[in-house]
Amino acid sequence: MDLEKLFKPKSMAVVGISKRNYLSPGRIILLKNEFEMDVEVYGIYPGGGQIEGIKLYDRLDKLPEIPDILVIAIGPDDTLGYIQDCVDLGIPASVIIGGGFAEIGGEGIKRQKKLEKIAFENDIAVLGPNCIGVYAPPLVDTIFSPTERITRPPKGSVALISQSGGFLIDQFFVKFKERNIGVSTAVSIGNRAVVDEVMLLEYFSKIDKETSNIAFYLEGFKEDKAREFLRLAKESEDTVITFFGGKTSEGKVATQSHTASLAGDFKIISAALRQHQIIQPNSERELLTCLKVYDVLSHRKNPFGKNVITYGDVAIVSVSGGHGVLASDMLRKYGLNAVEFTDQEKKDLKGLMNPVAQKIASFNNPIDLTGSVLDKDIEDIIRYLSEIERIECIILLLLPYPPNISFQIGRRIANIVSTKNKPLVCFIPYVSKYSLIIESLELANIPVFHSIKESVQAVSALKHRTRIENIKSGNIFWE
Amino acid sequence: MDLEKLFKPKSMAVVGISKRNYLSPGRIILLKNEFEMDVEVYGIYPGGGQIEGIKLYDRLDKLPEIPDILVIAIGPDDTLGYIQDCVDLGIPASVIIGGGFAEIGGEGIKRQKKLEKIAFENDIAVLGPNCIGVYAPPLVDTIFSPTERITRPPKGSVALISQSGGFLIDQFFVKFKERNIGVSTAVSIGNRAVVDEVMLLEYFSKIDKETSNIAFYLEGFKEDKAREFLRLAKESEDTVITFFGGKTSEGKVATQSHTASLAGDFKIISAALRQHQIIQPNSERELLTCLKVYDVLSHRKNPFGKNVITYGDVAIVSVSGGHGVLASDMLRKYGLNAVEFTDQEKKDLKGLMNPVAQKIASFNNPIDLTGSVLDKDIEDIIRYLSEIERIECIILLLLPYPPNISFQIGRRIANIVSTKNKPLVCFIPYVSKYSLIIESLELANIPVFHSIKESVQAVSALKHRTRIENIKSGNIFWE
Repeated sequence: MDLEKLFKPKSMAVVGISKRNYLSPGRIILLKNEFEMDVEVYGIYPGGGQIEGIKLYDRLDKLPEIPDILVIAIGPDDTLGYIQDCVDLGIPASVIIGGGFAEIGGEGIKRQKKLEKIAFENDIAVLGPNCIGVYAPPLVDTIFSPTERITRPPKGSVALISQSGGFLIDQFFVKFKERNIGVSTAVSIGNRAVVDEVMLLEYFSKIDKETSNIAFYLEGFKEDKAREFLRLAKESEDTVITFFGGKTSEGKVATQSHTASLAGDFKIISAALRQHQIIQPNSERELLTCLKVYDVLSHRKNPFGKNVITYGDVAIVSVSGGHGVLASDMLRKYGLNAVEFTDQEKKDLKGLMNPVAQKIASFNNPIDLTGSVLDKDIEDIIRYLSEIERIECIILLLLPYPPNISFQIGRRIANIVSTKNKPLVCFIPYVSKYSLIIESLELANIPVFHSIKESVQAVSALKHRTRIENIKSGNIFWE
Repeated sequence: MDLEKLFKPKSMAVVGISKRNYLSPGRIILLKNEFEMDVEVYGIYPGGGQIEGIKLYDRLDKLPEIPDILVIAIGPDDTLGYIQDCVDLGIPASVIIGGGFAEIGGEGIKRQKKLEKIAFENDIAVLGPNCIGVYAPPLVDTIFSPTERITRPPKGSVALISQSGGFLIDQFFVKFKERNIGVSTAVSIGNRAVVDEVMLLEYFSKIDKETSNIAFYLEGFKEDKAREFLRLAKESEDTVITFFGGKTSEGKVATQSHTASLAGDFKIISAALRQHQIIQPNSERELLTCLKVYDVLSHRKNPFGKNVITYGDVAIVSVSGGHGVLASDMLRKYGLNAVEFTDQEKKDLKGLMNPVAQKIASFNNPIDLTGSVLDKDIEDIIRYLSEIERIECIILLLLPYPPNISFQIGRRIANIVSTKNKPLVCFIPYVSKYSLIIESLELANIPVFHSIKESVQAVSALKHRTRIENIKSGNIFWE
């Protein structure tokens, strides 16, 4: 099934527009695409006329062209008729926003079966039903919530596929924006009657050139689809990441009434995912952390060059002892190790510091530079650590509270990392007044996190990806 | 030892002011207290003169009054002389900002021993050394970082004691502000040579009337102090919360070089803490969640009235199925249960919804109201659930993306909770455009969280506190 028209449509028609209710989903979708997106959009309304100055067409067959996609935002009873119109007119793709299908049981299941039959027999790429659809910037946005209510993520390398529309726009979009993680295409699959996770994995792996990381939020695989999914993931050159909701029995009950799926036995699934080189974050936060580092490293200018993290050996640099302690606490949990410094190295490090801080700083790993630190101390220490080969990654806990730390600090560190290519992840508190420092690092594609935990998780995520890439490229045969 | 002068000083002197370097810690502390805080502040500078229009005094004995507190922001060599001045002049309290004591070993240990001897023999309440001091609004702020670099938390019920100054101003202050958790007094204890966790627990429990929750971030108890700490905590009418850094062996090594303490065997400590009715969050996030609900419930207008959470039986209400699934997933981990609705209740709930949403909403627990929800539906559902006695708490996952949810929704829910007194915690995404909804709930002291996890943790935190209060009040004798 060809999904290109679903995600890269040139033209689109919308049914389910209300002239009276300006909050009706169809009307919202028509207007946001007309005013904000690049797709050519046509509204269908029995009797024609116009709303907000936009001409409405009486019927689908009266449009000036056959649209690439039909968005159906009406009740379940009339939906199938419109899918039949797609067949009759040769519209290759459709998004069904509304519910009232398998998720409600009884009648709904029969209705969904009919939908599947028409779509598969006629090769119509139907997304949904019971979904919020597609966000594929700059072309199309079928999310029925007004855009001003949504937080749109930046453009980037991550294709995001979610079984929950609410999760997509809230947990993902909001946090992607907060963390500056870029999205190529976001897809809400809803009941995935036709277009499912396997088709999407294939499309984003093999066809879509903008995507290099494919992330799934699923509550379970579609029946009989797990095997094919695993095979495609193993073959994929992209990094495939899955995160499952509904792992507990309570969650499973919730899932059943939500998208009519079964979560299955999570332990078995998890082992299979691992064997097929799929990244499995343990929490939503870990998922976001993975996506952030993978997105950053998908940039053409990857500041870490060819350096990868194989063993997880890190140096921690902090200006606050407590922050160093907390980061150290987390290393083992994430399969990482604090490198031990030699006496000579400790002496060298001390020698790089200003005379006041020298007396009170501590040069074990974590290094505590104290509040008496100057910009230049940090710069010199990072440069020195970058030369030590057995350090695979530096975790810099950069609190901008010491009075002598300047707004130049981010740029100065970025310059060192971009030159030395030593992997470095940075913690900086998420406070708007420090966004200048954050931006100066992120402009150079150096990942900045706003919790100590995430900065540690990030190194672990990089280590996981190294392992997977080694296996995929045949550098490791055991596993 | 009387700590009142340390936290409620009327007057203060500062030594360690540089006329040349406007970023010297003493100068920053002098100016921020002169310009921003209520304390009467005097600067000491050999030769006198002035900076920024503030008169400086030649020596301590030339001040117009004996100050309540002396802030010492100079190198370790001259610090002891100033502590002797406190003895000679009758200054009852001092904050030593600088390091160079036990944390550097050797000479430093000797120096700290001398300091302890003078302070204990003469009953001087010395805070530090190697600390950032005290933030006790509106009186005093000895944090040596310029205030514009700091994020100050709101005023409230939590006394916050931290062994790490960096942790205090970053992990705590920033996140307290983000989450709207109020602080009565914040204390960085540094090397805790004299004033330690036991004295502070006693002071905030027994003397300070503004505090009703006492939170400690420690890397370990001070030698021989654990027993007394436990006894005081058990007797305290306030809620005592401890969170330990340095639990792993890596963390322990880091701790030793940081504040010269040993983390001890965490498992043994943890069992003892539990037996003494001390709340022990498992993560920094859980800690913040606890403090937020406890702070909220310390308000005179507690919207939950006398209703407490004993068994952890909850109803989850969401407008997004995926959010409901995720919350359900977490219940068991946090010792909570989803109440089962009877068929009649499900029918009633359905009957309360608008006709469109009624067809697609789901009335198991979690309840999924779908994106077709109206304000009135949410209001009616919450009111109905509030009447069901076996529901101890409602978790409302309120995503404001459905087009019909209005800016009134927060106020409408707040009114129901304030009237019915059914405990309710709310998840609302942390997006600035939704702050109006967040504020309308928080103004009525209804706790709002910005992650699903935290909203579940919050109910668990309330359940923990019920258990502890039952034990303390003698309602439960077994444990």
